[in-house]
Amino acid sequence: MLEPLFHPKRLLLVGLSDKPGNLGRNIVANLADFRFDGELFLLGREPGVVLGHRIATSYDELPDGIDLAVMLVPARTVTSHLDACGRKGIGHVIIESGGFQELGDEGLVLAREALDTARRHGIRVQGPNCLGNTVTRSGLCTTFVPCPPLWRQGGVAIVTQSGGVGLSFLFDMASENIGLAQFASIGNKLDLDETDYVQAMASDDQVNTIAMYLEAVERGRAFYDAVRACDKPVLVIKSGRTEAGSQAAFSHTAAVAADDSVLSAAIDQAGAIRVEDAAELIARMKGLQMPRIRGNRLAVISRTGGHAVIAADAAIGQGFVLPPIPPTFLQKVQSLHASSLIKPRNPLDLGDLFNFDLYAEIMEAAAADPEIDAVLFMHEYLADARRHESRQLIPRAEQLAKRYGKPVAVVLFTDGQESAYLKKKHDYPFFTSVESALLGLGASLRVVQGHARRALAIPDGDDGIRDAAAMIRAHKQAGRTTLLAEGFDVLAAAGLPVASSVLARDAADLAAASTFPVAAKVISTRAVHKSDAGGVVLGIEDAVRLAATFEDLARRFGPFADGEGILVQPMAAQGVEMLVGGLRDPSFGPMVVVGLGGVLVEVMRDTALRLAPIGPDEARAMLAGLRGAPVLKGVRGRPPADIEALVHVIVRLSRLMAECPEIAELDMNPVMVHAQGASVIDVRIALQ
Amino acid sequence: MLEPLFHPKRLLLVGLSDKPGNLGRNIVANLADFRFDGELFLLGREPGVVLGHRIATSYDELPDGIDLAVMLVPARTVTSHLDACGRKGIGHVIIESGGFQELGDEGLVLAREALDTARRHGIRVQGPNCLGNTVTRSGLCTTFVPCPPLWRQGGVAIVTQSGGVGLSFLFDMASENIGLAQFASIGNKLDLDETDYVQAMASDDQVNTIAMYLEAVERGRAFYDAVRACDKPVLVIKSGRTEAGSQAAFSHTAAVAADDSVLSAAIDQAGAIRVEDAAELIARMKGLQMPRIRGNRLAVISRTGGHAVIAADAAIGQGFVLPPIPPTFLQKVQSLHASSLIKPRNPLDLGDLFNFDLYAEIMEAAAADPEIDAVLFMHEYLADARRHESRQLIPRAEQLAKRYGKPVAVVLFTDGQESAYLKKKHDYPFFTSVESALLGLGASLRVVQGHARRALAIPDGDDGIRDAAAMIRAHKQAGRTTLLAEGFDVLAAAGLPVASSVLARDAADLAAASTFPVAAKVISTRAVHKSDAGGVVLGIEDAVRLAATFEDLARRFGPFADGEGILVQPMAAQGVEMLVGGLRDPSFGPMVVVGLGGVLVEVMRDTALRLAPIGPDEARAMLAGLRGAPVLKGVRGRPPADIEALVHVIVRLSRLMAECPEIAELDMNPVMVHAQGASVIDVRIALQ
Repeated sequence: MLEPLFHPKRLLLVGLSDKPGNLGRNIVANLADFRFDGELFLLGREPGVVLGHRIATSYDELPDGIDLAVMLVPARTVTSHLDACGRKGIGHVIIESGGFQELGDEGLVLAREALDTARRHGIRVQGPNCLGNTVTRSGLCTTFVPCPPLWRQGGVAIVTQSGGVGLSFLFDMASENIGLAQFASIGNKLDLDETDYVQAMASDDQVNTIAMYLEAVERGRAFYDAVRACDKPVLVIKSGRTEAGSQAAFSHTAAVAADDSVLSAAIDQAGAIRVEDAAELIARMKGLQMPRIRGNRLAVISRTGGHAVIAADAAIGQGFVLPPIPPTFLQKVQSLHASSLIKPRNPLDLGDLFNFDLYAEIMEAAAADPEIDAVLFMHEYLADARRHESRQLIPRAEQLAKRYGKPVAVVLFTDGQESAYLKKKHDYPFFTSVESALLGLGASLRVVQGHARRALAIPDGDDGIRDAAAMIRAHKQAGRTTLLAEGFDVLAAAGLPVASSVLARDAADLAAASTFPVAAKVISTRAVHKSDAGGVVLGIEDAVRLAATFEDLARRFGPFADGEGILVQPMAAQGVEMLVGGLRDPSFGPMVVVGLGGVLVEVMRDTALRLAPIGPDEARAMLAGLRGAPVLKGVRGRPPADIEALVHVIVRLSRLMAECPEIAELDMNPVMVHAQGASVIDVRIALQ
Repeated sequence: MLEPLFHPKRLLLVGLSDKPGNLGRNIVANLADFRFDGELFLLGREPGVVLGHRIATSYDELPDGIDLAVMLVPARTVTSHLDACGRKGIGHVIIESGGFQELGDEGLVLAREALDTARRHGIRVQGPNCLGNTVTRSGLCTTFVPCPPLWRQGGVAIVTQSGGVGLSFLFDMASENIGLAQFASIGNKLDLDETDYVQAMASDDQVNTIAMYLEAVERGRAFYDAVRACDKPVLVIKSGRTEAGSQAAFSHTAAVAADDSVLSAAIDQAGAIRVEDAAELIARMKGLQMPRIRGNRLAVISRTGGHAVIAADAAIGQGFVLPPIPPTFLQKVQSLHASSLIKPRNPLDLGDLFNFDLYAEIMEAAAADPEIDAVLFMHEYLADARRHESRQLIPRAEQLAKRYGKPVAVVLFTDGQESAYLKKKHDYPFFTSVESALLGLGASLRVVQGHARRALAIPDGDDGIRDAAAMIRAHKQAGRTTLLAEGFDVLAAAGLPVASSVLARDAADLAAASTFPVAAKVISTRAVHKSDAGGVVLGIEDAVRLAATFEDLARRFGPFADGEGILVQPMAAQGVEMLVGGLRDPSFGPMVVVGLGGVLVEVMRDTALRLAPIGPDEARAMLAGLRGAPVLKGVRGRPPADIEALVHVIVRLSRLMAECPEIAELDMNPVMVHAQGASVIDVRIALQ
């Protein structure tokens, strides 16, 4: 659907003049340099000629069939141009001009007018405040500054909210000789946003890797779904992580700060890779241009012992294991160099072995071994010493990677001029630092893990969940905004193990409490933090004391509104206190959160977050990801907690959050996880 | 003292031959290329000539006054050469040959023989298994592979345990045009180790920055003292962080793994900077070649809005603040460009402003402002567009940095060829990514903070500390290895607030307990985890129940050895449970550790570690560094804990650890920190 934005057959540039300094002229020159394969038309206020193309001064002079217009005109004139484009039947427009939302209220008015006009004509708009698109295959390049075609054609697509940041990625890709498929600078995202471009890139067979720079995500859930549905690796840099950064982003493109931890959770869960900076992005891209990895068993072979140590650290950091050298590989190494001082370890330090033929054989032995998933070979050479043989390591690695269908990464430590030369010469990537090589290999591993994660089953909603949702809906229709005691009934309907509870509104209700000892808790909107308010009494041993407690609490906190009163529960059996909650992010929708309960953990913010709904594997991964996870396995001689019972609670809650949009927030705190089973001791549901 | 290792007047190379492939020949060539300023002598088994220098075949042929010998001979012949050197009066030797400790037992024997011989002659030895030294000023270059003189003379010294890793740093420095003072590859550290080189570099006025690559630290406390005493910035990469890495390091240079967290604590506390990888190292080095920063107020000025956002995030990450644009700077910006769309923010997005004269003025306005400590200016340009003006930004920044004595960092986003050209052209560093610029500026900030930290007072030991140490010594002389109940007396002597305790060995002793309720705890080496063993009874209300409890515990855990029994303490008042401990690292000596008490925190390993002794500021910093620190300030309506009382406990303990080498380990768990005061509830001291 976005095809004309990348492969226009008839392209119109609006805002041209033949005067020096006209920015549109740069686009005409870029199109010539990139060998644009479509037909080009120019429109301006004055007639003239630019690089052999006549400037038309009215839309009437233009032919029909124009499928893309690129505008570089003052913001206040954009709407009338959009109107003219619409009448001309032009379906796609890139607005490169600035002066809209990013400049505050006045610009916002202009932006809204433009959007209304575009919508009326059914025009899809990229930008404003952007550099448009560059496509190596079609030779499109709408960047309004002179842009030499530095890039070879390849599989990487860039989608960037900031044109300047995107260009800096392009510079890095050129230096590293990473092949470019497409570059899309999407600016203020008035109409089309990152989700549209992920979908477009996902279905474009020229693209094998998608790299994004974002300052905000417009439609969080749709973005998540699009990334999750995309078969290709997606790398995301998202800035505005800090308060200062997100303020700067707002001032820059009017990007509204999403909760950064929500975005991180979404990127992870969708199987994409969140990337910290440009250097990591480039390293990840390079890794993804090698054959895809199948597992995490890495063989490291190094000419220098120190780099082997560094590689071992970095490999562990990226989730690899360094298995002992498998027998066939080992045999090969020993047969090649029986008298060597080499110790048969992984990482393998080549020590006193100076023989490039043997290097090649050792590299192949590692690549061929079925118990090895990826090979890292590191070599150092100075200037002229052994230059010729050293250079051959790159094509050799490329051959092996192809032959055995696994990544064979080469790191060459040499002077900058030499590595710049080699980067230009070879399309197969190589690395110049240990860490970047491991980031590259790690990207491949993350992609495999992401695919596995996406394949996990998510249970459907069932009658219980639907019943619970219906109960909540009824409460909402009755005008309720917060559910306390009724929350237990809702959760019970949803199949969650709630503590048996009696809500006593007068002394007569206490008769229902029969198993002592019990706890009595005030349920009242006037005592939200009921422990702090002295509204909780634990360990009440008999009916007489319960009656006295009721009287005291009712006197202090009554009278009670609907759904309020004194909640009487049997004292909870021992277990691990957890908090399990649901929340609804304005952009990403329903989420679940889990953490260890108690004051300390509250302080330490040791929680795991996921978009709902999730299945049991994802719930188990949430628990495993908590720093405090060992507590669930039993510490200081306590029995292990019933993790599966807790997983059940998380999965059912996630389903309820997904099924019932009336829930704004749902807190179960604590959920007590026993040696067998779990029980929800307290619940609070905020409706919206 | 190490002067001849870097500036030899008469240099002898041992192991020369005129045959192709002789590694020593490469050194002769390197010395010629580097224009070595000393006199050169060669020794080998056969006569010959290398680059005009005659090869002597016996030490007798050599003159006196040789001050450095570099050996490239088989490991088994090294000892006899050392002996000959000793007889010749040569005081310093670099052994470049491998084949020693790194190859296991046989090599270890050779290494010990070599060391004995060197010691006997008073020879100081660098290596073995190394590349020796390169010194730009004296033209020394003992690397045994051909080494083109790629580096300009400058202030950075490299000290590296791995020659290969050190060389890869040198390649990066050459590409970045960072000036080199000295390169020392120190190998297996048979005699001289990193501490010796830190001291040598600290007193060498050619050196302004010391960068180290280490796999192990030999004499931890001495290293810490040397770094702490060094006025120059020290950057340390230490590999072997993971189990896999530290195993690889052991196999590489027989480096024994120190506890990585201890090393990190030592580096931090000494005011050095622990660096993760080569890219960070280079960025930090570049930052340290600009004028030193005075504070953390950063002004960010950017041609592209996206990079401004990224810079804001990265600045916060490095400990900077972005203050609002100060009035004088703001006035300047407004006067320069009254009609601009620029919003007066920090980061300042230059938006539609395309005027290099104004850029220069804005940069100066920021640099000149007394409320700004550092300036970051970012600019992007493509190929030929505005190349000339863009290039001028670097000398402009250099001028301003000199004029105002603060760092003015420039980031240029451009193609790789252009930035390679600019790096060669300018000695003043510039950056090609936002993150590296902030790492660079951050290095300067860390140095300032490190200096402040070193200046903190550390209280001396006093009579109380000395009395406590004497008590411990007496226990040790009495054959004791663990102190439990006696620990309270020791701590009390040292001025620590211990809970009042009675150690009851028979029922009569209970009479001393008068303030009820009390707790009774078994003190016995048979019940180390006394809570788990059921050896703790809390909340005993009166003497009758205490007697019964005593009888029960004594029956279950008695009979008691010396210092054992039932400890009776008044129940502790409410407070925050902390653990405060001391330990003695085999390499770094006495340490203190502090963390929040309780099961969860044990699991989360939320602790802070320092080398002892420390003063109160450092103790406060330890507490502030805990993730759980907010608990001390009072959560959920609890009163804030008496942090100063806890600081007192930590400082006194650190003093005791430093004063009393007989303590192997000392655990106070818990220390209860009340709203006023603190009390040590339990203590265990292991002697050594």
